[in-house]
Amino acid sequence: MSDESIAKSAVLVQSEKMDENSVEVVGPDFNVFDERRKNGGSPVTVAELMKFYGQIGFQATNLGEAIDIINEMRLWRDPNPPEGKKDRATIFLGYTSNLISSGVREILRYLVQHKCVDVLVTTAGGIEEDFIKCLAPTYLGDFALSGEKLRKKGINRIGNLVVPNENYCLFEEWILPIMDKMVEEQEAGYHWSPSRFIHRLGKEINDERSVYYWAYKNNIPVFSPALTDGSIGDMLYFHTFKADPRPIDLDIVPDIRAINSLAVHANRSGMIILGGGVIKHHICNANLMRNGADWTVYINTANEFDGSDAGARPDEAVSWGKIRLDGRRTKVYGEVTIIFPLIVAATFAS
Amino acid sequence: MSDESIAKSAVLVQSEKMDENSVEVVGPDFNVFDERRKNGGSPVTVAELMKFYGQIGFQATNLGEAIDIINEMRLWRDPNPPEGKKDRATIFLGYTSNLISSGVREILRYLVQHKCVDVLVTTAGGIEEDFIKCLAPTYLGDFALSGEKLRKKGINRIGNLVVPNENYCLFEEWILPIMDKMVEEQEAGYHWSPSRFIHRLGKEINDERSVYYWAYKNNIPVFSPALTDGSIGDMLYFHTFKADPRPIDLDIVPDIRAINSLAVHANRSGMIILGGGVIKHHICNANLMRNGADWTVYINTANEFDGSDAGARPDEAVSWGKIRLDGRRTKVYGEVTIIFPLIVAATFAS
Amino acid sequence: MSDESIAKSAVLVQSEKMDENSVEVVGPDFNVFDERRKNGGSPVTVAELMKFYGQIGFQATNLGEAIDIINEMRLWRDPNPPEGKKDRATIFLGYTSNLISSGVREILRYLVQHKCVDVLVTTAGGIEEDFIKCLAPTYLGDFALSGEKLRKKGINRIGNLVVPNENYCLFEEWILPIMDKMVEEQEAGYHWSPSRFIHRLGKEINDERSVYYWAYKNNIPVFSPALTDGSIGDMLYFHTFKADPRPIDLDIVPDIRAINSLAVHANRSGMIILGGGVIKHHICNANLMRNGADWTVYINTANEFDGSDAGARPDEAVSWGKIRLDGRRTKVYGEVTIIFPLIVAATFAS
Amino acid sequence: MSDESIAKSAVLVQSEKMDENSVEVVGPDFNVFDERRKNGGSPVTVAELMKFYGQIGFQATNLGEAIDIINEMRLWRDPNPPEGKKDRATIFLGYTSNLISSGVREILRYLVQHKCVDVLVTTAGGIEEDFIKCLAPTYLGDFALSGEKLRKKGINRIGNLVVPNENYCLFEEWILPIMDKMVEEQEAGYHWSPSRFIHRLGKEINDERSVYYWAYKNNIPVFSPALTDGSIGDMLYFHTFKADPRPIDLDIVPDIRAINSLAVHANRSGMIILGGGVIKHHICNANLMRNGADWTVYINTANEFDGSDAGARPDEAVSWGKIRLDGRRTKVYGEVTIIFPLIVAATFAS
Repeated sequence: MSDESIAKSAVLVQSEKMDENSVEVVGPDFNVFDERRKNGGSPVTVAELMKFYGQIGFQATNLGEAIDIINEMRLWRDPNPPEGKKDRATIFLGYTSNLISSGVREILRYLVQHKCVDVLVTTAGGIEEDFIKCLAPTYLGDFALSGEKLRKKGINRIGNLVVPNENYCLFEEWILPIMDKMVEEQEAGYHWSPSRFIHRLGKEINDERSVYYWAYKNNIPVFSPALTDGSIGDMLYFHTFKADPRPIDLDIVPDIRAINSLAVHANRSGMIILGGGVIKHHICNANLMRNGADWTVYINTANEFDGSDAGARPDEAVSWGKIRLDGRRTKVYGEVTIIFPLIVAATFAS
Repeated sequence: MSDESIAKSAVLVQSEKMDENSVEVVGPDFNVFDERRKNGGSPVTVAELMKFYGQIGFQATNLGEAIDIINEMRLWRDPNPPEGKKDRATIFLGYTSNLISSGVREILRYLVQHKCVDVLVTTAGGIEEDFIKCLAPTYLGDFALSGEKLRKKGINRIGNLVVPNENYCLFEEWILPIMDKMVEEQEAGYHWSPSRFIHRLGKEINDERSVYYWAYKNNIPVFSPALTDGSIGDMLYFHTFKADPRPIDLDIVPDIRAINSLAVHANRSGMIILGGGVIKHHICNANLMRNGADWTVYINTANEFDGSDAGARPDEAVSWGKIRLDGRRTKVYGEVTIIFPLIVAATFAS
Repeated sequence: MSDESIAKSAVLVQSEKMDENSVEVVGPDFNVFDERRKNGGSPVTVAELMKFYGQIGFQATNLGEAIDIINEMRLWRDPNPPEGKKDRATIFLGYTSNLISSGVREILRYLVQHKCVDVLVTTAGGIEEDFIKCLAPTYLGDFALSGEKLRKKGINRIGNLVVPNENYCLFEEWILPIMDKMVEEQEAGYHWSPSRFIHRLGKEINDERSVYYWAYKNNIPVFSPALTDGSIGDMLYFHTFKADPRPIDLDIVPDIRAINSLAVHANRSGMIILGGGVIKHHICNANLMRNGADWTVYINTANEFDGSDAGARPDEAVSWGKIRLDGRRTKVYGEVTIIFPLIVAATFAS
Repeated sequence: MSDESIAKSAVLVQSEKMDENSVEVVGPDFNVFDERRKNGGSPVTVAELMKFYGQIGFQATNLGEAIDIINEMRLWRDPNPPEGKKDRATIFLGYTSNLISSGVREILRYLVQHKCVDVLVTTAGGIEEDFIKCLAPTYLGDFALSGEKLRKKGINRIGNLVVPNENYCLFEEWILPIMDKMVEEQEAGYHWSPSRFIHRLGKEINDERSVYYWAYKNNIPVFSPALTDGSIGDMLYFHTFKADPRPIDLDIVPDIRAINSLAVHANRSGMIILGGGVIKHHICNANLMRNGADWTVYINTANEFDGSDAGARPDEAVSWGKIRLDGRRTKVYGEVTIIFPLIVAATFAS
């Protein structure tokens, strides 16, 4: 065969017909919205634009799917549920500490305030930074600020955010007296666990800007098994010197029973997990107790190649029974501060 | 010192006062939009939501900044420019091939149709896939489809998209006769370069869905120095057998002169670069000829740790003189299909 | 000015002389090793090749630096320390669960067996998978195995590894009787914490292949604040039904006091952190108690752009006081299974 | 059912027996090498350590597989090939520009010097930086150096490397006279293409430290379709002012014919691709002409989620016919400066 024939036979292979239900890739036509505006209509809304995302491809498609899945969860939470959707869905929402440091906090607060979700899981920083923000602000900074210069000024960096160290001093002043009371109550027989501890802080803060104020108010449990891993841990450590020989006993076993029970008793279960690490694993592991979640949305920037749980695709959780074989699921590869406000605008807040 | 004192002196260091202009991190309050909707108002629009992004932190802040920068570029393109902004800005827009495969193509077409940008740079696939989509559709698929099964069916995968190989056969039928004419014109003295070649194809396709139809129509030059690196290259290769001994001469030198001249003659220059590789380097390198761009927006998923140009932050381009010392600049770490529609909705289409 | 002059003045700017101590980028010349082999010498050793890495650039440079830093830590642990290095260094080693699932476990076991490190921090899976491997093997699989097919076979996937579910049944049989004894001891007055719990399991497993057997044997404390977040948590949950109304009380407060005390008492402190999440934050936070670590090596695949602690560069920890202003530090962006064996070969095992 | 039974039935599902050929995950035992050293033996060699990588899991497994695949390619290049391996393999090696800037250059030079590979593909910077290094050094820098300060000093940054701008002035002095001669030869009838241009520069540099000197010497073709995209392009641009009206005609069509012919004529074909972008696509596309490569090794840091060709797994190339259905293939997710020296030590240099 000639070079030309060899190459043509490889390049120009015939293809089978596509399935009739195949969906064409096509993006939004902004001319349509221009037209509407010219005629006095409103500019494109978030919910409208998101409707096109499914057909754009790549991560836009996954974001479109995430919105669909969450809207499906919501159907099973309707106070007047449609026929066939009477089993109320339990929604587990997990997020990492940095999201509370960011302005995503206000969106999480909105969801908890309006009882859009049933169970929260976060890390220690995801708890304390919410309370600290009630005491003093977190500011915009820059990823490239010098660590040395900041330390000399007593300013802490979280990505492109900065938190004056003063904020942690205010936190100490606020929380240590509460810990004193907790020890007293413990002596009177109360048994503390991280979720009970958070519930109490939510009551104490008594501030409508706080996520955990609303969690307390709406009786939404918050799980954070490694609660000592942050400023709360620093304060508990300091408090051991004061409360010696009988400091607060923070027992993590009641919480694993509590979160697993919530999963086992859920008629249907949805997981919305923003970020990786303990918060992702903890929600998935609880859902294993019921042989898997019905709906799953992961949003994070991790990849699977290193075998981390953080980067594991939903399909890995299927192998473990953490997601049902027929559970709808997607992962959006991307940064939560960009993606989650869009999702909420097109789901819970629409 | 006791353990407690040592630890407290480290944990509770005092901080300097924050600068008065420091900006607090805070996210949007969806209660406000709920209120408006209850009163018959419209749901939150994309442009409205994006206004909050600057204060959310992390990549939301960078996205907010990208929108600001592009809106600043646009001020210098006003037909009736405000005082002090009379130097018309030249906007260079670069994008990788996969974006034309995705539904971002329709958005790029919108920008070219309405002359929102002045110079395009893309790779070979970014050219051919636009024409091929005029001949037959690209479909949604899945990242996990089996390569072996697809090859047996003659279906090609691009991420979570699929393209029947038939489309490339249609492309061959369309382009080979055009190449015959090009050889004739070459014999009559015309000197081809990739940008001239693309301009001609834009004329030939004569289809309003095509990005390059509008580039042809609006005389917007399109640069693609490695134009042989894709299906067009396959066709040029096949054509050499036909056109032997004098096939099309595709000279890349006229194009480097042309793009550099555009940069040198630009009164002010803006770069919007979607993705990495040749398209990113090529636009930045042209802007070095004028000692740097005035405005820079990168959107991509690459990171700097491997020393690749794809992952290089804007600050690296500053060291080379590709971005001016005082040039406004940002990089949004994220996936273009999610991010770019939002940007266009909040800038060129607003 | 002509186009040519404008462009030349930007492109051909003069440069200042480089500092005399500047180091040239240059890689290893394999001809040298070829020569040696031809003369009957040994092929290039890991330690030899690593010596060149510092001058290669990009992450090779960071890996070379990591090796240097760890070798410097080791000088301060010499039984006969050189003058000026008498303050023994305390080394904190953290690693995520997946590394115990991988063959990095054998390397971690080597380090603990030979007392190369002083404190371990890991997540729940990083504990239980070590014990489970003493009961039955983990196998190689593939990242692309179908979750659905695996679940139907009862096989769990961790990246490209697989673990038969049978292994967890064996784990249950092993651990539940131990938990019964733990409850008895608790009733007799013993107060459990995660690190005490792990210490006890290390004793019970009595198997030289186990990391925690050696940690027990060599009295190296192991911290894992979220110990309920995995199979051990499943077993503790099951055990609550048995041990009702007085199950094991796993108090995380003694452990935060213990790890912080280790940091405060360290004359000098080094951190080697493989992966991100709780394990990274926990070691750094403990080192804040002593105003920062002296030496820091991070190895992970996360990036800083999302503001996560996992992706934070060492410089962010400097701002918090978790790393000393003058502390040597580096981050290697890469996957631990490739990088850590090289490091150990060129440091602890050399 | 009780909570306990529900949960146990999900957690403790029975598993099928593993296939008898399943491979256990296990890492190297450094005790063995310690023992050997104590007995006067040599420390662990790179080739030895790499033998364990296949069983470690995650990317170590992929690196072990990459080494296996490359060693298999080499069997088909034996001057005295074993029975059944008489079809000589053609090896295509691609690499991005930054690798020539790094110390990987010396390793690439070694491979070309010893004719370990047959075809090179790189980007413009991958050509010019090799020649520039013959004129003046590239130095180690830091990822965090300020772009503004560097520009003011005339120093260019590439990741954590720096190149004084003086080097580009030296390059101009060296290359412009060569371009004058090229124009003369063109007038005498010679037809330039990027690969012919590079071949000529390799002859002119006449320096054994140069990759392209050896490519010239050993007649190994080098393809770089976007050769104008870098300093060579700057020089060609400058030269157009001098050579007006008949500058060098750099025709990319002869090169696409040449590289495709090499693929079509290859009895067997192997691809080793370091990095992404044009260099990855170009080699794969050439191999489509022969219905796919027999062996494929990708090493890069890109991920597939954005639908880029850079991040596409080998399986995507299978769907296109760029890799044979039965072609051995792997991708190592990681940074080339760390990984490639290990590979060469365990393959070509062993």
